[in-house]
Amino acid sequence: MSPIDERPAGQAHPTQSLDDTVHQRTRLGALAVLHESAQAEFTFLREALDLTAGNLSRHLQVLEEAGLVEVDKGYEGRRPRTWVRITKAGRRAFLDEIAQLKELIRRVDDAAEGPDRG
Amino acid sequence: MSPIDERPAGQAHPTQSLDDTVHQRTRLGALAVLHESAQAEFTFLREALDLTAGNLSRHLQVLEEAGLVEVDKGYEGRRPRTWVRITKAGRRAFLDEIAQLKELIRRVDDAAEGPDRG
Repeated sequence: MSPIDERPAGQAHPTQSLDDTVHQRTRLGALAVLHESAQAEFTFLREALDLTAGNLSRHLQVLEEAGLVEVDKGYEGRRPRTWVRITKAGRRAFLDEIAQLKELIRRVDDAAEGPDRG
Repeated sequence: MSPIDERPAGQAHPTQSLDDTVHQRTRLGALAVLHESAQAEFTFLREALDLTAGNLSRHLQVLEEAGLVEVDKGYEGRRPRTWVRITKAGRRAFLDEIAQLKELIRRVDDAAEGPDRG
């Protein structure tokens, strides 16, 4: 924060607070699915988001490195399975993103109602 | 669309329809500001979004190449001015993004209300 930050109130834009790690479309989708189900099998995620395995892996790695998801490889019977879980930090980051998006949408909807009367 | 696309209804995820050209955080911010004011001076945009000139220029170029904004350089008196205007296609793309984000948020809020009763 600059000491001479005299930005008028209400001028800071909600997109400034978005975090690219979460906001990127594929990662946002993965976090949304995991937020809903807490844990998901890799193949389920891949199908839910209509991604290639390589693309999903790459994005999960970014999320894992940021501590937002945990990836566990194991077996179910003889079949290899990869489970993906959202972490507490992941949930918080996802809900922060959703809050910023709500604020963005509120502004768009307010603007649609007519010119600023303030 | 694959002819064997038998994805159950309601499974297609709203983030699949997001367009990176619009969704990227800085460009989303620029489009949001331009959607509100139709046209804005480069410096105004830069300050509203708290960006460096180089960063904003780079993103405006992506939007201009996609036909979503128009950039006009001119003078106001002796001062060089750059005006940025959202195009009809830009407005449509922005509102599509907002519609997808609303759908995403609706799902998150629905999930927060408790387990699926369907």
